[in-house]
Parts: sequence; C-alpha cells; structure tokens
Amino acid sequence: MYEELFDELSEATKTVNQVIERMLDVSSRPLELYTASRHLIEAGGKRLRPFLVLKSCEIVGGNSADALPFAAAVEFIHNFTLIHDDIMDNDEKRRGVATVHNLWGVPIAITAGDLLFAKAYNAVLSSTKTSTVSSQRILKILEIITNTTISICQGQVRDVVFETKELIPEKDYFNMIGEKTAILLETSAKIGAIIGRGKARQIQRLGRFAYYSGLAFQIVDDILGLTADENTLGKPVGSDVREGKKTLIMIYALTHANETQRKQIYSVLGKEEASLNDVKAVLQIIRSLDALEYASIKAEKLVEKAKSQLSSFPSSHTKDILLNLASYILSRKY
Amino acid sequence: MYEELFDELSEATKTVNQVIERMLDVSSRPLELYTASRHLIEAGGKRLRPFLVLKSCEIVGGNSADALPFAAAVEFIHNFTLIHDDIMDNDEKRRGVATVHNLWGVPIAITAGDLLFAKAYNAVLSSTKTSTVSSQRILKILEIITNTTISICQGQVRDVVFETKELIPEKDYFNMIGEKTAILLETSAKIGAIIGRGKARQIQRLGRFAYYSGLAFQIVDDILGLTADENTLGKPVGSDVREGKKTLIMIYALTHANETQRKQIYSVLGKEEASLNDVKAVLQIIRSLDALEYASIKAEKLVEKAKSQLSSFPSSHTKDILLNLASYILSRKY
Repeated sequence: MYEELFDELSEATKTVNQVIERMLDVSSRPLELYTASRHLIEAGGKRLRPFLVLKSCEIVGGNSADALPFAAAVEFIHNFTLIHDDIMDNDEKRRGVATVHNLWGVPIAITAGDLLFAKAYNAVLSSTKTSTVSSQRILKILEIITNTTISICQGQVRDVVFETKELIPEKDYFNMIGEKTAILLETSAKIGAIIGRGKARQIQRLGRFAYYSGLAFQIVDDILGLTADENTLGKPVGSDVREGKKTLIMIYALTHANETQRKQIYSVLGKEEASLNDVKAVLQIIRSLDALEYASIKAEKLVEKAKSQLSSFPSSHTKDILLNLASYILSRKY
Repeated sequence: MYEELFDELSEATKTVNQVIERMLDVSSRPLELYTASRHLIEAGGKRLRPFLVLKSCEIVGGNSADALPFAAAVEFIHNFTLIHDDIMDNDEKRRGVATVHNLWGVPIAITAGDLLFAKAYNAVLSSTKTSTVSSQRILKILEIITNTTISICQGQVRDVVFETKELIPEKDYFNMIGEKTAILLETSAKIGAIIGRGKARQIQRLGRFAYYSGLAFQIVDDILGLTADENTLGKPVGSDVREGKKTLIMIYALTHANETQRKQIYSVLGKEEASLNDVKAVLQIIRSLDALEYASIKAEKLVEKAKSQLSSFPSSHTKDILLNLASYILSRKY
C-alpha cells in the first residue's frame, strides 16, 4: 500500500541528506563538534519534515529543488531539539544508537544542538545566493522558523512541568504537543507551499494538514513507546512512564482508573528506578482500561481531519502521496 | 576618568533593557521558561555588546534608535551562551546570583538558552515592521549573527577540549577566545555600523576595534577570575583552575614553570575537588612567574591595537567614548 510513498520518501531522503552533508562538512573543525552534530542525523530518521517541505512545494505547482535548503533547515531544527531533549530526559538511546550526550558528554551535546539550530538559519540564508526566492519570502520564512522554535521551547518546558503534576487536562496535553511537535510539521508544509508560490489559502490548508497529522504522529509515538519492542523502537520501552510523562494514554488511564489502579500507577509513574516489571504492571492497567484503543481512535480522527484539509486540492500524484503519508502515521511500527 | 562613559553606558542600558523587557514579556507562558530566560539578564551585566551596537551606529552618522532591536539581539545571544556555558562548567553563581540551571534545573535552563537564541532572531526580524532598515541589510545582519553563533559553538567546544589537554600553544588560545568571545563584540560593532549605513571600510575598522578589545576583555576576565574576590566577581574565585581551563596565564605559567612547580600545578589543575588552599598555592606559583603581568601586558597591547583601528575616524564625542571603553577594559575590577 505504501510502496510508492516509501520510494519517494527514500528518494527525497537521499537528496536532502546530500544538502545536509554539504552543510555539516566532515572537514569542519573542531572535529568533536561536527561529528557530534552529525551523529543523530546519520543514525537515520524518517526525514518526514523535509519530505513535507518538498511535497507541499510540489502540490502548489512549485519546483521542489528550490525548497531543498529549507528542507535541510527543518531537519536541523528537528535534530537540534532531539539532542537537547535527550539530555533533558536522560535518554541513553535513540534511533537504535547511543544519544549524543551519552557519547560526547553534556557540554559537547548542548553545543552540538546549538550548532544545528544555527545551521538551520545558515541553510535558509545560504539560499539567498543560489535560489530565486525573493528576500521578502525568505524573511517571512525566517520569521515562521523563529516563531516555531519559540513555540517548541514553550512546549518543551510545559512537557517538563507536566512531569511534576499528578494529572493535567486533556486539552493541555493537546496544546503541549501542538506547541512542541505538531508545529514543526505545520511549518514544514507552510514553508514548502510558500517556496512553491502557493496561495495564502493553500499555505494555510497544507499547514493545517501537517499540524493535525503531527498531533496524530505524537499520539502514535506515545502508543509505540509503550507497546513496541526495544529493537524496533530504537530506545528503551516505557521510558515515558519512568519519566512521568503525561501522555494522552496516561491521562486517560489516570482519569478512568479505580482507586487501587490509580495508586499502583502513581507508585511507578515518574520513578527513574522503576523495574521493567513495574512498567509492565502499569501497562497491564492501561490495557485493561482500553486507554491504548482510546488514543488510537483519537489519532485516527485527527488523521481524517488532516486529510480533509486537502479536499479542495485537485487530484494529483503528489496529493495521493500526502494522503498516504497521513495514513501511514497510523500504521507505522516505529 | 570614566564618568562620561559610565553615564552613557547606564543610559544605554536603560533603553536596551526596555526593549528586552518588551520581548520577554512577564505575561508570556509558560511562566517558568520566561522567568528562567530573564533571570541572568535581570541580574545585571554591563550591556557592553548592545553599547557597541549603538555607538558604532552613531560614529558612522546613524541614528542609534534604529539599532535598538539589534542591540537587544546581541544581548540575547550573549545571555543564551552564558546560560549554556554555566551548565557545561557546572557553575553555581554568575553576576552574584545563582545560575539558571542551579535554580530551575538543567532541562529548563537548556530550553531558556534556546529561547534566547530564538529571541535574538525574533528581535532582528521584528525590526522589519518598525524600522527603515532594508531587507537586504537585515538579511546581511542575520547572516553575520548566524556565522557568529556557529563560531561561538566552535570556540566553546575548543575550550572544553582544551580542558582535557595538558598544554596548548598560545596561538590556539587566541584562536579559541577569538571564536568564542571576541567575535560577538566584533559582530556588535559591525551590525551597528551597518545599521548606521557606514562605509565597508568603517564597518571593518569598527569590527577590528571591537575584536581586539574583545581579546583583551577575555584576558582581563581570566586575570580577574584568579585575583578578584568572590563578592566583587559575582562567582567563586579559581573556578578556571578547578575546571582545567587553559587561560593565557595558565599557558604562560606551565611553559615557564620548573619541574616541581609544573607538577604542583597539574596536581590541582582540572580537579573539581581542589580546595581553596590548593588553588591559592597555584596562584602563588603563577605570581612568582609573573604570569599575571605577562597577561596584563598582552591585554594592554591589544587595547592599543584596538584603539589604533579608530585613528582614521574624525574626532568626535562618540569616538572618545569608544576609546574610553577600550581603556576601561584594562582597569575594570569585575
């Protein structure tokens, strides 16, 4: 079902990787900084955000080659936040490899994240020399990227603060993942559409499409974090529970648990030292309350809402690919 | 001698602080993020970099009011790097107050630094709405700011890597403090001169003036870190020794020490647990080798070199202030 999507995704990944490699040249010094900055990017990742940039450019009739530096920029932003997140969450693995701070220590990891942040602007600004994108549009895109990063910082701190709270309203969870995760997908789609000279309404629709897809993506991420096995996931299972993350699943479970179940969840939630068995017991409660099913249905509805944003776009191969991308979010296994 | 300088510096500080306060509005949420981001800025600081922006704008005949958002931007960059540096160095105090990670923890401190980084771009981009600075010049300034931050990241990692080395050549020290510290002063001066529509040569001269002043500033910082008392300094004395920093003073001392002295220095250098007496013993060796005097003379020469960059500028009040600023670097006590 997703063969064509995967083919195009892997094609785009190759092209974007070339731009990224040029911008994080192996001959740059100091070596430690650039090796650390490249580490997570080289470890893999699906390049969903660059793909959204390129396809959103195409769907409005633009040439996706013009959008390449911008595709690299959103991937830099994404990886900068991952490196810093891993430090904050004390995570030891991601994408199946050791995290940056785990390999190079916290000081170099913080700086590697900062460098990728700067490289995002570098990528966009370098396009002024090679592309035909007007200064006005470049300034507009820089403004969007800047506001996006401010939003991600806000969402990140909300996520951290939520860890210290017993329970938070579902609405606050959605605002948080919107600020922290969905916005960068929205921004990727909008930037692509701006480069492709899309109309204001098309830019907005594509942005909404990616935003709702992003919310669904995060919910599925939370589900996989509890149910996938470590090898597929590329990181330890249940770390969200140990870190006390208030995922949609956890909020639903805490709200619907009886007194005994709630006490058992709280005895494990946010306890770094919790054993795999402790986590499994919590997962058992979560399953018995159908919390995973509840989250799945929410994600499905969001994907439907996302797809409906594209209804006014005429049929095209690119439209099919974008619709497929949204569906894929629900079926992915890692 | 410096009365007029101090008056103008304090006047500029007030004006710049208003811009900063508007950009980090107390009503912004989440509260923890914005309070943490404001913390170091509110604790003080000399606002040397914003001052360089404003005065460099004035000296080429510009209106310094146009330069205000850019002055705020360089102060945001400066404070972003301080917050991240303090985490990396495990420093508990700065500007006489507890550091951000000490008060809010590492996750919020990392994010507060990231936010200030984004706010620097936010400040520059917001100027497109209020000022008369052309898009071309704004893009040029954004490029300079981006390259400067990349350089700071590189210098930062060199500084960290140097801590693990026994000894490094003096040349490498100067390259490191150039990349890490002097460049942001250079950039401040250049941005001001660009806003003021200075000629290419004036922009370059003011940049060099600030760069050499910045090198001297860092050397004096290293001297004060060993000789000032904690209350004046706002942070513990001798932390550079405990962190194994390869300052100019340390490089000179290690190069000129006899075998016994060198062994004694290495028994303390880079040892987090070193006592105040250990540090004092190292300071004693440093003094006996005239290493502080050597560093002072280097700083003096750099300030002379800095001042000579302004020789082609006609006499003016602003020129006197800038020359005074360079001299002040040598005489400051904190």
